Amino acid sequence: MPQHKISPDSPIGIFDSGIGGLTVVKAVQAALPAERLIYFGDTARVPYGTKSQVTIRKYAREDTELLMKHQPKLIIVACNTVSALALDVVEQTAGGVPVIGVLRAGAELAAERTRSGRIGVIGTQATIGSNAYSCAIREENDALEVFPKACPLFVPLAEEGFIDHPATRLVAEEYLSAFAGKQIDTLVLGCTHYPILRKIIESIAGPEITIIDSAEAVASKAGELLAARNILNQRAEKALPHLMVSDLPQKFRELYRLFMGTELPDVELVGV
Amino acid sequence: MPQHKISPDSPIGIFDSGIGGLTVVKAVQAALPAERLIYFGDTARVPYGTKSQVTIRKYAREDTELLMKHQPKLIIVACNTVSALALDVVEQTAGGVPVIGVLRAGAELAAERTRSGRIGVIGTQATIGSNAYSCAIREENDALEVFPKACPLFVPLAEEGFIDHPATRLVAEEYLSAFAGKQIDTLVLGCTHYPILRKIIESIAGPEITIIDSAEAVASKAGELLAARNILNQRAEKALPHLMVSDLPQKFRELYRLFMGTELPDVELVGV
Repeated sequence: MPQHKISPDSPIGIFDSGIGGLTVVKAVQAALPAERLIYFGDTARVPYGTKSQVTIRKYAREDTELLMKHQPKLIIVACNTVSALALDVVEQTAGGVPVIGVLRAGAELAAERTRSGRIGVIGTQATIGSNAYSCAIREENDALEVFPKACPLFVPLAEEGFIDHPATRLVAEEYLSAFAGKQIDTLVLGCTHYPILRKIIESIAGPEITIIDSAEAVASKAGELLAARNILNQRAEKALPHLMVSDLPQKFRELYRLFMGTELPDVELVGV
Repeated sequence: MPQHKISPDSPIGIFDSGIGGLTVVKAVQAALPAERLIYFGDTARVPYGTKSQVTIRKYAREDTELLMKHQPKLIIVACNTVSALALDVVEQTAGGVPVIGVLRAGAELAAERTRSGRIGVIGTQATIGSNAYSCAIREENDALEVFPKACPLFVPLAEEGFIDHPATRLVAEEYLSAFAGKQIDTLVLGCTHYPILRKIIESIAGPEITIIDSAEAVASKAGELLAARNILNQRAEKALPHLMVSDLPQKFRELYRLFMGTELPDVELVGV
Protein backbone atom coordinates (compact mmCIF):
# COMPACT_ATOMS: atom_id res chain seq x y z
CA MET A 1 0.00 0.00 0.00
CA PRO A 2 1.26 3.51 -0.82
CA GLN A 3 2.35 5.71 2.10
CA HIS A 4 0.27 8.63 0.79
CA LYS A 5 -3.42 9.09 -0.10
CA ILE A 6 -4.26 8.54 -3.76
CA SER A 7 -7.18 10.26 -5.50
CA PRO A 8 -8.21 10.90 -9.11
CA ASP A 9 -6.58 14.34 -8.76
CA SER A 10 -3.18 12.89 -7.75
CA PRO A 11 -0.56 13.46 -10.45
CA ILE A 12 1.07 10.93 -12.76
CA GLY A 13 4.85 11.00 -12.29
CA ILE A 14 6.98 10.39 -15.39
CA PHE A 15 10.76 10.31 -15.54
CA ASP A 16 13.49 9.83 -18.11
CA SER A 17 17.25 10.20 -18.29
CA GLY A 18 16.78 13.45 -20.17
CA ILE A 19 14.42 15.12 -22.56
CA GLY A 20 13.54 12.04 -24.63
CA GLY A 21 10.72 11.09 -22.27
CA LEU A 22 8.81 14.14 -23.46
CA THR A 23 7.56 11.92 -26.30
CA VAL A 24 5.83 9.95 -23.51
CA VAL A 25 4.47 13.14 -21.92
CA LYS A 26 3.08 14.11 -25.33
CA ALA A 27 1.46 10.70 -25.85
CA VAL A 28 -0.05 10.63 -22.33
CA GLN A 29 -1.36 14.19 -22.75
CA ALA A 30 -3.00 13.20 -26.02
CA ALA A 31 -4.59 10.08 -24.50
CA LEU A 32 -5.46 11.54 -21.06
CA PRO A 33 -5.67 15.33 -21.41
CA ALA A 34 -7.16 15.96 -17.93
CA GLU A 35 -4.36 14.23 -16.01
CA ARG A 36 -1.84 16.28 -14.03
CA LEU A 37 1.62 15.21 -15.22
CA ILE A 38 4.87 15.71 -13.32
CA TYR A 39 7.91 15.08 -15.47
CA PHE A 40 11.49 14.75 -14.30
CA GLY A 41 14.25 14.75 -16.93
CA ASP A 42 17.69 13.97 -15.49
CA THR A 43 19.41 16.31 -17.92
CA ALA A 44 22.50 16.64 -15.69
CA ARG A 45 23.29 12.94 -15.95
CA VAL A 46 21.95 12.10 -19.41
CA PRO A 47 22.59 9.72 -21.16
CA TYR A 48 21.94 6.62 -19.06
CA GLY A 49 22.25 4.28 -22.05
CA THR A 50 26.06 4.27 -22.07
CA LYS A 51 26.46 3.74 -18.31
CA SER A 52 26.86 0.57 -16.23
CA GLN A 53 24.01 -1.25 -14.52
CA VAL A 54 25.17 -0.21 -11.02
CA THR A 55 25.09 3.47 -11.96
CA ILE A 56 21.76 3.16 -13.76
CA ARG A 57 20.14 1.49 -10.71
CA LYS A 58 21.42 4.23 -8.39
CA TYR A 59 19.99 6.92 -10.68
CA ALA A 60 16.65 5.05 -10.98
CA ARG A 61 16.22 5.07 -7.19
CA GLU A 62 17.05 8.77 -6.90
CA ASP A 63 14.72 9.73 -9.77
CA THR A 64 11.85 7.77 -8.21
CA GLU A 65 12.45 9.36 -4.78
CA LEU A 66 12.18 12.76 -6.41
CA LEU A 67 8.79 11.95 -7.99
CA MET A 68 7.49 10.32 -4.77
CA LYS A 69 7.69 13.71 -3.04
CA HIS A 70 4.77 14.73 -5.27
CA GLN A 71 2.59 11.80 -4.06
CA PRO A 72 1.75 10.35 -7.48
CA LYS A 73 -1.00 7.84 -8.25
CA LEU A 74 1.13 6.22 -10.96
CA ILE A 75 4.76 6.30 -12.02
CA ILE A 76 5.68 5.91 -15.68
CA VAL A 77 9.29 5.04 -16.44
CA ALA A 78 9.79 6.76 -19.80
CA CYS A 79 13.42 5.68 -19.94
CA ASN A 80 13.96 2.41 -21.78
CA THR A 81 17.34 1.92 -20.11
CA VAL A 82 15.81 2.12 -16.62
CA SER A 83 12.84 -0.01 -17.73
CA ALA A 84 15.32 -2.63 -18.92
CA LEU A 85 17.79 -2.64 -16.04
CA ALA A 86 16.17 -1.16 -12.95
CA LEU A 87 12.35 -1.42 -13.00
CA ASP A 88 12.50 -3.49 -9.77
CA VAL A 89 14.40 -0.62 -8.08
CA VAL A 90 11.66 1.81 -9.14
CA GLU A 91 8.95 -0.53 -7.83
CA GLN A 92 10.70 -0.95 -4.47
CA THR A 93 11.21 2.80 -4.11
CA ALA A 94 7.62 3.56 -5.15
CA GLY A 95 6.13 1.52 -2.27
CA GLY A 96 2.64 0.50 -3.37
CA VAL A 97 2.30 3.10 -6.15
CA PRO A 98 1.84 1.29 -9.48
CA VAL A 99 4.72 1.52 -11.97
CA ILE A 100 4.57 1.16 -15.75
CA GLY A 101 7.70 0.98 -17.89
CA VAL A 102 7.78 1.88 -21.58
CA LEU A 103 9.57 -1.36 -22.27
CA ARG A 104 6.85 -3.79 -21.23
CA ALA A 105 4.15 -1.62 -22.80
CA GLY A 106 6.04 -1.66 -26.12
CA ALA A 107 6.74 -5.39 -25.84
CA GLU A 108 3.06 -6.20 -25.21
CA LEU A 109 1.87 -4.12 -28.16
CA ALA A 110 4.49 -5.67 -30.48
CA ALA A 111 3.48 -9.19 -29.43
CA GLU A 112 -0.17 -8.29 -30.09
CA ARG A 113 0.43 -6.74 -33.51
CA THR A 114 2.89 -9.14 -35.18
CA ARG A 115 1.48 -11.62 -37.70
CA SER A 116 4.72 -13.31 -38.80
CA GLY A 117 5.95 -13.69 -35.21
CA ARG A 118 9.26 -12.03 -36.15
CA ILE A 119 9.92 -8.71 -34.38
CA GLY A 120 12.82 -6.26 -34.68
CA VAL A 121 13.81 -4.02 -31.76
CA ILE A 122 16.09 -0.97 -31.93
CA GLY A 123 17.45 0.93 -28.92
CA THR A 124 20.53 2.20 -27.12
CA GLN A 125 23.53 -0.04 -26.40
CA ALA A 126 22.43 -0.63 -22.78
CA THR A 127 18.79 -1.43 -23.62
CA ILE A 128 19.75 -3.84 -26.39
CA GLY A 129 22.69 -5.32 -24.46
CA SER A 130 20.38 -6.09 -21.53
CA ASN A 131 18.24 -8.32 -23.78
CA ALA A 132 15.24 -7.02 -21.85
CA TYR A 133 12.98 -6.43 -24.88
CA SER A 134 13.60 -9.96 -26.12
CA CYS A 135 12.75 -11.35 -22.69
CA ALA A 136 9.64 -9.18 -22.30
CA ILE A 137 8.32 -10.05 -25.78
CA ARG A 138 8.95 -13.77 -25.27
CA GLU A 139 7.21 -13.63 -21.89
CA GLU A 140 4.13 -12.56 -23.85
CA ASN A 141 4.53 -15.46 -26.27
CA ASP A 142 7.60 -17.66 -26.34
CA ALA A 143 7.03 -18.65 -29.95
CA LEU A 144 7.94 -15.13 -31.08
CA GLU A 145 11.39 -14.45 -32.55
CA VAL A 146 13.10 -11.18 -31.64
CA PHE A 147 15.92 -9.49 -33.57
CA PRO A 148 17.59 -6.71 -31.55
CA LYS A 149 19.91 -4.00 -32.93
CA ALA A 150 21.67 -1.20 -31.01
CA CYS A 151 21.62 2.18 -32.81
CA PRO A 152 23.81 4.48 -30.66
CA LEU A 153 23.94 7.33 -33.20
CA PHE A 154 20.17 7.88 -33.41
CA VAL A 155 19.98 9.90 -30.17
CA PRO A 156 22.73 12.40 -31.08
CA LEU A 157 21.41 12.67 -34.66
CA ALA A 158 17.89 13.41 -33.34
CA GLU A 159 19.23 15.95 -30.83
CA GLU A 160 21.29 17.66 -33.54
CA GLY A 161 18.04 18.07 -35.49
CA PHE A 162 19.35 15.91 -38.37
CA ILE A 163 15.78 14.66 -38.85
CA ASP A 164 15.86 14.14 -42.61
CA HIS A 165 19.57 14.59 -43.27
CA PRO A 166 21.37 12.32 -45.78
CA ALA A 167 23.88 11.35 -43.06
CA THR A 168 21.00 10.15 -40.85
CA ARG A 169 19.67 8.13 -43.79
CA LEU A 170 23.10 6.49 -44.32
CA VAL A 171 23.39 5.66 -40.63
CA ALA A 172 19.81 4.34 -40.51
CA GLU A 173 20.35 2.24 -43.64
CA GLU A 174 23.44 0.71 -42.05
CA TYR A 175 21.71 0.00 -38.74
CA LEU A 176 18.49 -1.35 -40.31
CA SER A 177 20.43 -3.57 -42.75
CA ALA A 178 20.84 -5.83 -39.71
CA PHE A 179 17.22 -6.91 -40.36
CA ALA A 180 17.80 -7.90 -44.01
CA GLY A 181 16.60 -11.45 -44.61
CA LYS A 182 15.12 -11.67 -41.10
CA GLN A 183 11.55 -11.23 -42.45
CA ILE A 184 10.38 -9.11 -39.51
CA ASP A 185 6.91 -7.55 -39.84
CA THR A 186 7.08 -5.39 -36.68
CA LEU A 187 9.77 -2.96 -35.49
CA VAL A 188 9.81 -1.59 -31.94
CA LEU A 189 11.25 1.93 -31.42
CA GLY A 190 12.90 0.99 -28.12
CA CYS A 191 14.15 4.46 -27.23
CA THR A 192 12.08 7.55 -26.53
CA HIS A 193 14.16 9.65 -28.93
CA TYR A 194 13.43 7.45 -31.92
CA PRO A 195 9.91 8.74 -32.68
CA ILE A 196 11.69 11.95 -33.75
CA LEU A 197 13.35 9.92 -36.54
CA ARG A 198 10.23 7.83 -37.21
CA LYS A 199 9.73 9.04 -40.79
CA ILE A 200 13.23 8.12 -41.96
CA ILE A 201 13.11 4.78 -40.11
CA GLU A 202 9.68 4.02 -41.57
CA SER A 203 10.75 4.89 -45.10
CA ILE A 204 13.77 2.57 -44.92
CA ALA A 205 11.85 -0.23 -43.18
CA GLY A 206 9.14 -0.09 -45.86
CA PRO A 207 5.34 -0.27 -45.73
CA GLU A 208 5.17 -3.98 -44.79
CA ILE A 209 6.70 -3.32 -41.39
CA THR A 210 4.52 -2.03 -38.52
CA ILE A 211 6.32 0.50 -36.33
CA ILE A 212 5.59 0.20 -32.59
CA ASP A 213 6.04 3.45 -30.68
CA SER A 214 6.50 2.56 -26.99
CA ALA A 215 5.36 6.05 -25.95
CA GLU A 216 1.91 5.51 -27.46
CA ALA A 217 1.80 2.01 -25.98
CA VAL A 218 2.56 3.21 -22.45
CA ALA A 219 -0.02 6.00 -22.65
CA SER A 220 -2.74 3.58 -23.59
CA LYS A 221 -1.71 1.19 -20.80
CA ALA A 222 -1.76 4.05 -18.26
CA GLY A 223 -5.35 4.87 -19.20
CA GLU A 224 -6.43 1.23 -18.72
CA LEU A 225 -4.73 0.99 -15.33
CA LEU A 226 -6.26 4.21 -13.98
CA ALA A 227 -9.72 3.26 -15.25
CA ALA A 228 -9.48 -0.20 -13.64
CA ARG A 229 -8.58 1.42 -10.31
CA ASN A 230 -11.22 4.10 -10.71
CA ILE A 231 -8.74 6.94 -10.36
CA LEU A 232 -9.00 8.57 -13.78
CA ASN A 233 -9.11 12.35 -13.50
CA GLN A 234 -12.61 13.46 -14.57
CA ARG A 235 -11.94 17.22 -14.74
CA ALA A 236 -13.02 18.95 -17.93
CA GLU A 237 -10.03 21.29 -18.30
CA LYS A 238 -6.65 20.33 -19.72
CA ALA A 239 -3.60 20.36 -17.42
CA LEU A 240 -0.16 21.68 -18.32
CA PRO A 241 2.69 19.37 -17.33
CA HIS A 242 4.92 20.34 -14.40
CA LEU A 243 8.48 20.00 -15.69
CA MET A 244 11.55 19.37 -13.53
CA VAL A 245 15.12 18.98 -14.80
CA SER A 246 18.45 18.46 -13.05
CA ASP A 247 20.28 20.78 -15.44
CA LEU A 248 19.17 23.44 -17.88
CA PRO A 249 21.62 23.59 -20.74
CA GLN A 250 21.46 26.05 -23.60
CA LYS A 251 20.09 23.46 -26.01
CA PHE A 252 17.10 22.53 -23.83
CA ARG A 253 14.68 25.09 -25.24
CA GLU A 254 15.47 24.02 -28.80
CA LEU A 255 15.05 20.33 -27.98
CA TYR A 256 11.77 20.98 -26.18
CA ARG A 257 10.42 22.55 -29.36
CA LEU A 258 11.66 19.57 -31.39
CA PHE A 259 10.04 17.02 -29.07
CA MET A 260 6.82 18.76 -28.07
CA GLY A 261 6.16 21.05 -31.02
CA THR A 262 5.44 23.95 -28.64
CA GLU A 263 7.49 26.57 -26.79
CA LEU A 264 9.12 25.70 -23.44
CA PRO A 265 6.90 26.46 -20.40
CA ASP A 266 8.29 27.19 -16.92
CA VAL A 267 10.75 24.58 -15.74
CA GLU A 268 11.84 23.77 -12.19
CA LEU A 269 15.54 23.06 -11.64
CA VAL A 270 16.08 20.33 -9.02
CA GLY A 271 19.20 18.78 -7.52
CA VAL A 272 19.95 15.04 -7.64
CA MET B 1 52.38 26.98 -2.34
CA PRO B 2 51.11 23.40 -2.61
CA GLN B 3 50.06 21.66 0.61
CA HIS B 4 52.15 18.59 -0.27
CA LYS B 5 55.82 18.00 -1.11
CA ILE B 6 56.62 18.00 -4.83
CA SER B 7 59.52 16.03 -6.30
CA PRO B 8 60.52 14.85 -9.80
CA ASP B 9 58.91 11.51 -8.92
CA SER B 10 55.53 13.07 -8.10
CA PRO B 11 52.86 12.10 -10.64
CA ILE B 12 51.20 14.25 -13.29
CA GLY B 13 47.41 14.23 -12.79
CA ILE B 14 45.26 14.37 -15.91
CA PHE B 15 41.47 14.42 -16.04
CA ASP B 16 38.73 14.50 -18.60
CA SER B 17 34.96 14.09 -18.69
CA GLY B 18 35.42 10.59 -20.07
CA ILE B 19 37.76 8.57 -22.19
CA GLY B 20 38.61 11.30 -24.73
CA GLY B 21 41.46 12.62 -22.56
CA LEU B 22 43.37 9.42 -23.29
CA THR B 23 44.57 11.19 -26.46
CA VAL B 24 46.32 13.57 -24.01
CA VAL B 25 47.72 10.65 -21.97
CA LYS B 26 49.06 9.18 -25.20
CA ALA B 27 50.66 12.47 -26.27
CA VAL B 28 52.22 13.09 -22.81
CA GLN B 29 53.53 9.50 -22.69
CA ALA B 30 55.13 9.99 -26.10
CA ALA B 31 56.74 13.29 -25.10
CA LEU B 32 57.67 12.41 -21.47
CA PRO B 33 57.86 8.59 -21.25
CA ALA B 34 59.40 8.50 -17.72
CA GLU B 35 56.61 10.49 -16.07
CA ARG B 36 54.11 8.76 -13.78
CA LEU B 37 50.64 9.65 -15.06
CA ILE B 38 47.41 9.44 -13.07
CA TYR B 39 44.34 9.72 -15.26
CA PHE B 40 40.78 10.22 -14.13
CA GLY B 41 37.98 9.82 -16.69
CA ASP B 42 34.56 10.80 -15.34
CA THR B 43 32.82 8.10 -17.35
CA ALA B 44 29.75 8.10 -15.08
CA ARG B 45 28.95 11.74 -15.88
CA VAL B 46 30.26 12.05 -19.44
CA PRO B 47 29.60 14.11 -21.54
CA TYR B 48 30.25 17.52 -19.95
CA GLY B 49 29.91 19.36 -23.27
CA THR B 50 26.12 19.35 -23.23
CA LYS B 51 25.75 20.46 -19.60
CA SER B 52 25.37 23.91 -18.05
CA GLN B 53 28.22 25.98 -16.65
CA VAL B 54 27.09 25.48 -13.02
CA THR B 55 27.18 21.71 -13.37
CA ILE B 56 30.50 21.74 -15.24
CA ARG B 57 32.13 23.85 -12.50
CA LYS B 58 30.89 21.50 -9.78
CA TYR B 59 32.29 18.50 -11.64
CA ALA B 60 35.62 20.29 -12.26
CA ARG B 61 36.09 20.87 -8.53
CA GLU B 62 35.28 17.26 -7.65
CA ASP B 63 37.58 15.86 -10.36
CA THR B 64 40.47 18.05 -9.15
CA GLU B 65 39.92 17.00 -5.52
CA LEU B 66 40.18 13.38 -6.61
CA LEU B 67 43.55 13.96 -8.33
CA MET B 68 44.87 16.07 -5.41
CA LYS B 69 44.72 12.98 -3.17
CA HIS B 70 47.61 11.63 -5.26
CA GLN B 71 49.79 14.71 -4.55
CA PRO B 72 50.57 15.62 -8.16
CA LYS B 73 53.31 17.99 -9.34
CA LEU B 74 51.16 19.18 -12.24
CA ILE B 75 47.49 18.93 -13.24
CA ILE B 76 46.54 18.76 -16.90
CA VAL B 77 42.93 19.48 -17.75
CA ALA B 78 42.39 17.28 -20.79
CA CYS B 79 38.76 18.31 -21.05
CA ASN B 80 38.19 21.27 -23.37
CA THR B 81 34.84 22.00 -21.76
CA VAL B 82 36.39 22.34 -18.29
CA SER B 83 39.35 24.28 -19.75
CA ALA B 84 36.85 26.68 -21.28
CA LEU B 85 34.41 27.13 -18.43
CA ALA B 86 36.08 26.14 -15.17
CA LEU B 87 39.88 26.41 -15.29
CA ASP B 88 39.76 28.91 -12.41
CA VAL B 89 37.89 26.35 -10.29
CA VAL B 90 40.62 23.79 -10.99
CA GLU B 91 43.34 26.31 -10.09
CA GLN B 92 41.63 27.24 -6.81
CA THR B 93 41.14 23.59 -5.87
CA ALA B 94 44.72 22.68 -6.84
CA GLY B 95 46.22 25.13 -4.32
CA GLY B 96 49.71 25.96 -5.58
CA VAL B 97 50.02 22.99 -7.95
CA PRO B 98 50.44 24.27 -11.53
CA VAL B 99 47.54 23.66 -13.91
CA ILE B 100 47.64 23.44 -17.71
CA GLY B 101 44.49 23.28 -19.81
CA VAL B 102 44.36 21.85 -23.32
CA LEU B 103 42.55 24.92 -24.47
CA ARG B 104 45.28 27.49 -23.84
CA ALA B 105 47.96 25.11 -25.10
CA GLY B 106 46.05 24.65 -28.36
CA ALA B 107 45.34 28.37 -28.64
CA GLU B 108 49.02 29.29 -28.18
CA LEU B 109 50.18 26.78 -30.79
CA ALA B 110 47.54 27.94 -33.29
CA ALA B 111 48.55 31.59 -32.80
CA GLU B 112 52.18 30.61 -33.35
CA ARG B 113 51.56 28.55 -36.51
CA THR B 114 49.09 30.67 -38.48
CA ARG B 115 50.43 32.74 -41.36
CA SER B 116 47.19 34.23 -42.68
CA GLY B 117 46.02 35.17 -39.17
CA ARG B 118 42.70 33.34 -39.79
CA ILE B 119 42.06 30.36 -37.53
CA GLY B 120 39.16 27.88 -37.42
CA VAL B 121 38.21 26.11 -34.19
CA ILE B 122 35.94 23.07 -33.87
CA GLY B 123 34.61 21.65 -30.59
CA THR B 124 31.54 20.66 -28.58
CA GLN B 125 28.56 22.98 -28.18
CA ALA B 126 29.69 24.11 -24.70
CA THR B 127 33.32 24.78 -25.70
CA ILE B 128 32.32 26.75 -28.79
CA GLY B 129 29.40 28.49 -27.07
CA SER B 130 31.75 29.70 -24.33
CA ASN B 131 33.84 31.58 -26.90
CA ALA B 132 36.88 30.58 -24.84
CA TYR B 133 39.10 29.53 -27.77
CA SER B 134 38.46 32.83 -29.53
CA CYS B 135 39.34 34.74 -26.36
CA ALA B 136 42.47 32.66 -25.68
CA ILE B 137 43.74 33.00 -29.26
CA ARG B 138 43.10 36.74 -29.32
CA GLU B 139 44.88 37.13 -25.98
CA GLU B 140 47.94 35.77 -27.78
CA ASN B 141 47.50 38.26 -30.61
CA ASP B 142 44.44 40.43 -30.98
CA ALA B 143 44.98 40.87 -34.71
CA LEU B 144 44.05 37.20 -35.28
CA GLU B 145 40.60 36.30 -36.58
CA VAL B 146 38.90 33.21 -35.17
CA PHE B 147 36.07 31.23 -36.79
CA PRO B 148 34.42 28.79 -34.34
CA LYS B 149 32.10 25.92 -35.28
CA ALA B 150 30.37 23.43 -32.94
CA CYS B 151 30.41 19.82 -34.18
CA PRO B 152 28.22 17.87 -31.69
CA LEU B 153 28.08 14.66 -33.76
CA PHE B 154 31.85 14.09 -33.93
CA VAL B 155 32.08 12.58 -30.42
CA PRO B 156 29.33 9.98 -30.92
CA LEU B 157 30.62 9.16 -34.43
CA ALA B 158 34.16 8.62 -33.06
CA GLU B 159 32.83 6.50 -30.18
CA GLU B 160 30.75 4.40 -32.58
CA GLY B 161 33.98 3.70 -34.49
CA PHE B 162 32.63 5.41 -37.64
CA ILE B 163 36.21 6.57 -38.35
CA ASP B 164 36.08 6.52 -42.16
CA HIS B 165 32.36 5.97 -42.68
CA PRO B 166 30.54 7.84 -45.49
CA ALA B 167 28.05 9.20 -42.91
CA THR B 168 30.96 10.73 -40.95
CA ARG B 169 32.25 12.28 -44.17
CA LEU B 170 28.80 13.81 -44.91
CA VAL B 171 28.55 15.19 -41.37
CA ALA B 172 32.13 16.52 -41.50
CA GLU B 173 31.55 18.12 -44.91
CA GLU B 174 28.47 19.87 -43.54
CA TYR B 175 30.24 21.08 -40.40
CA LEU B 176 33.43 22.18 -42.18
CA SER B 177 31.47 23.99 -44.91
CA ALA B 178 31.09 26.69 -42.24
CA PHE B 179 34.71 27.68 -43.09
CA ALA B 180 34.07 28.09 -46.85
CA GLY B 181 35.28 31.51 -48.01
CA LYS B 182 36.78 32.26 -44.57
CA GLN B 183 40.34 31.62 -45.86
CA ILE B 184 41.54 29.97 -42.66
CA ASP B 185 45.01 28.39 -42.79
CA THR B 186 44.88 26.71 -39.34
CA LEU B 187 42.21 24.51 -37.77
CA VAL B 188 42.22 23.68 -34.04
CA LEU B 189 40.78 20.30 -32.99
CA GLY B 190 39.18 21.72 -29.84
CA CYS B 191 37.93 18.41 -28.41
CA THR B 192 40.02 15.47 -27.28
CA HIS B 193 37.93 13.03 -29.31
CA TYR B 194 38.61 14.75 -32.61
CA PRO B 195 42.14 13.38 -33.21
CA ILE B 196 40.34 10.04 -33.76
CA LEU B 197 38.65 11.61 -36.81
CA ARG B 198 41.75 13.59 -37.82
CA LYS B 199 42.22 11.85 -41.19
CA ILE B 200 38.71 12.57 -42.45
CA ILE B 201 38.83 16.16 -41.12
CA GLU B 202 42.25 16.70 -42.71
CA SER B 203 41.14 15.30 -46.07
CA ILE B 204 38.11 17.61 -46.19
CA ALA B 205 40.04 20.65 -44.93
CA GLY B 206 42.72 20.09 -47.59
CA PRO B 207 46.52 20.30 -47.52
CA GLU B 208 46.68 24.12 -47.16
CA ILE B 209 45.21 23.97 -43.68
CA THR B 210 47.42 23.13 -40.67
CA ILE B 211 45.65 20.96 -38.11
CA ILE B 212 46.43 21.82 -34.47
CA ASP B 213 46.01 18.89 -32.07
CA SER B 214 45.60 20.34 -28.57
CA ALA B 215 46.74 17.04 -27.01
CA GLU B 216 50.17 17.36 -28.64
CA ALA B 217 50.30 21.04 -27.70
CA VAL B 218 49.58 20.40 -24.03
CA ALA B 219 52.17 17.60 -23.83
CA SER B 220 54.89 19.86 -25.17
CA LYS B 221 53.86 22.64 -22.77
CA ALA B 222 53.95 20.21 -19.82
CA GLY B 223 57.54 19.25 -20.66
CA GLU B 224 58.61 22.93 -20.77
CA LEU B 225 56.94 23.69 -17.43
CA LEU B 226 58.50 20.72 -15.62
CA ALA B 227 61.95 21.47 -17.07
CA ALA B 228 61.73 25.13 -16.01
CA ARG B 229 60.84 24.05 -12.45
CA ASN B 230 63.50 21.35 -12.46
CA ILE B 231 61.03 18.59 -11.65
CA LEU B 232 61.26 16.45 -14.79
CA ASN B 233 61.38 12.77 -13.94
CA GLN B 234 64.86 11.53 -14.84
CA ARG B 235 64.23 7.79 -14.43
CA ALA B 236 65.28 5.57 -17.32
CA GLU B 237 62.28 3.22 -17.31
CA LYS B 238 58.89 3.91 -18.80
CA ALA B 239 55.88 4.23 -16.49
CA LEU B 240 52.40 2.79 -17.15
CA PRO B 241 49.56 5.21 -16.49
CA HIS B 242 47.36 4.71 -13.41
CA LEU B 243 43.79 4.83 -14.71
CA MET B 244 40.74 5.78 -12.65
CA VAL B 245 37.15 5.96 -13.92
CA SER B 246 33.83 6.73 -12.23
CA ASP B 247 32.00 4.06 -14.20
CA LEU B 248 33.10 1.06 -16.21
CA PRO B 249 30.60 0.46 -18.98
CA GLN B 250 30.74 -2.41 -21.44
CA LYS B 251 32.07 -0.21 -24.23
CA PHE B 252 35.08 1.05 -22.27
CA ARG B 253 37.50 -1.69 -23.30
CA GLU B 254 36.67 -1.17 -26.97
CA LEU B 255 37.08 2.60 -26.74
CA TYR B 256 40.38 2.24 -24.90
CA ARG B 257 41.70 0.21 -27.81
CA LEU B 258 40.43 2.84 -30.26
CA PHE B 259 42.08 5.73 -28.37
CA MET B 260 45.32 4.16 -27.16
CA GLY B 261 45.95 1.44 -29.72
CA THR B 262 46.69 -1.08 -26.92
CA GLU B 263 44.66 -3.37 -24.67
CA LEU B 264 43.08 -1.99 -21.49
CA PRO B 265 45.34 -2.29 -18.39
CA ASP B 266 43.98 -2.48 -14.82
CA VAL B 267 41.53 0.28 -14.02
CA GLU B 268 40.47 1.64 -10.64
CA LEU B 269 36.77 2.39 -10.16
CA VAL B 270 36.26 5.50 -7.98
CA GLY B 271 33.15 7.26 -6.72
CA VAL B 272 32.38 10.92 -7.40
